[in-house]
Amino acid sequence: MKIISGPASVGLGEKIAEILGIKTVPLVFKTYPDGEFYVRLDGEVGNEEVVVVQTTSPPQDARLMQLMLIVDAAKRHGAKKVTAVVPYLAYARQDRAFLEGEAVSIEAIAHMLKAVGISNLITVNVHQQRVLGKFPFPAKTVSAVPLLAEYFKRKGLEKAFALAPDDGALWLVEEAKMILGGEYGFIEKHRDPHTGQISMEKKRLDVKGKVVIIFDDVISTGGTIALAANYASECGASKIYAGCVHPLLIGDAEKKILDAGVEEIVGTDTVPSHVSKVTVAPLISKALKEF
Amino acid sequence: MKIISGPASVGLGEKIAEILGIKTVPLVFKTYPDGEFYVRLDGEVGNEEVVVVQTTSPPQDARLMQLMLIVDAAKRHGAKKVTAVVPYLAYARQDRAFLEGEAVSIEAIAHMLKAVGISNLITVNVHQQRVLGKFPFPAKTVSAVPLLAEYFKRKGLEKAFALAPDDGALWLVEEAKMILGGEYGFIEKHRDPHTGQISMEKKRLDVKGKVVIIFDDVISTGGTIALAANYASECGASKIYAGCVHPLLIGDAEKKILDAGVEEIVGTDTVPSHVSKVTVAPLISKALKEF
Repeated sequence: MKIISGPASVGLGEKIAEILGIKTVPLVFKTYPDGEFYVRLDGEVGNEEVVVVQTTSPPQDARLMQLMLIVDAAKRHGAKKVTAVVPYLAYARQDRAFLEGEAVSIEAIAHMLKAVGISNLITVNVHQQRVLGKFPFPAKTVSAVPLLAEYFKRKGLEKAFALAPDDGALWLVEEAKMILGGEYGFIEKHRDPHTGQISMEKKRLDVKGKVVIIFDDVISTGGTIALAANYASECGASKIYAGCVHPLLIGDAEKKILDAGVEEIVGTDTVPSHVSKVTVAPLISKALKEF
Repeated sequence: MKIISGPASVGLGEKIAEILGIKTVPLVFKTYPDGEFYVRLDGEVGNEEVVVVQTTSPPQDARLMQLMLIVDAAKRHGAKKVTAVVPYLAYARQDRAFLEGEAVSIEAIAHMLKAVGISNLITVNVHQQRVLGKFPFPAKTVSAVPLLAEYFKRKGLEKAFALAPDDGALWLVEEAKMILGGEYGFIEKHRDPHTGQISMEKKRLDVKGKVVIIFDDVISTGGTIALAANYASECGASKIYAGCVHPLLIGDAEKKILDAGVEEIVGTDTVPSHVSKVTVAPLISKALKEF
């Protein structure tokens, strides 16, 4: 097995290679003045199982193209099998045609990945697990929430209240609670069918005087976490933290969250950022061994 | 037949539909805050032959993704056949592995296009004709150079000297000369194998006192056209014009060319820009009827 670290996941790829004790294939990567990418593998991949590690956080289309080109190069130069490790999988929300006429982006991408020669895919906390079932090749998602919970545990935040900002994230806090050992819950939201306005549940959260850690899969513009933090604060939380797997942190997301009273934002290196304090390398390495 | 104008080629798509006297399918197109695209066809395509018009000039990866999503939507909602009209086809330079380990970008893209459901492709002045032969579906290129030559002819520049900036563009000026009726030629370049420095031919061009029109398929950073204009100027050209099919005009390309003494830059709407004074709509319409 050989590993190729894509330009969007250089550090993570190196860490995975180190854990697995295998070699990386150096990549010659250039961007032309018009924005087109150039990819060349500077090492042999003939008859090898090759793992390409490349996240697809924004700029997602460019990073997807980089991934496709690396896979093309590996297959073209003799790789027996290519496994894509895509720590953050873009376009995973549009997993069905909710309205007549819609594209189903993630399915289109899955078919593109297959066309360039991907045999397997591993991702981390995909937004909807069910999307992977429609992929035309084996694809699995692993959860980095336990690693986030362990980070907070090491900080001495055992028994903190693990809070999901909505019911969709409930299973994430169930995972966190297995590590932290404290209470957990989620915020029930109501969307007014006329105004579209979101209101929080009537029943107050029982977090008075408690340390709260909000967990979510992704921080995009930060609105969801900021709302949850404000609500936890209103309910009397003593301290609030936020843990997310994919810290996209679009625009002023970080400021929005800190302004809402969050002490610290902790993310993973599925999306390299200055809050990526937890690495998913051990998780991915394990998944690769089990595939 | 129905036409869908992609967000990068709205004007061109409408013009083609008008010439062919057929309907366009309205497109609902959005960009999410994280940069992902959303595509919905707001009209029926069931059992129709659908033509998607979308150029892939920079930002090329985003525009390729938009094209893929539109095709996905059309196929998913019943289109019998999808023809892609990609007036400027990105990544067409890397059409073979020049060095061991290289990706062959355009082949990877061709396979991605097939995977989302494209049956045919029409492009304009692809950089290397041979690339289309490797596509896994019928693909053809048409030349807009005669349309550019006609533009200059209408300006009264008949009998101008049609100049190719290098031998690769020679066949373009042969096409232009068929319309303009004057002389033509190309600049022979020598690359010093040690320094990489490019020098022009020893034999001077016979353009003294003549109007010169430089033709090329693409203006990217403008360096090639600027060099050719300087050379024509040194050889005594009385006036210099530049005609290109794809006016990418990266960075200060336009300034560079005008500073080299070019009176006017003329491009086509394969790449919408303020120098796109010639439309390829009649050319594409004809190609669609003949496919």
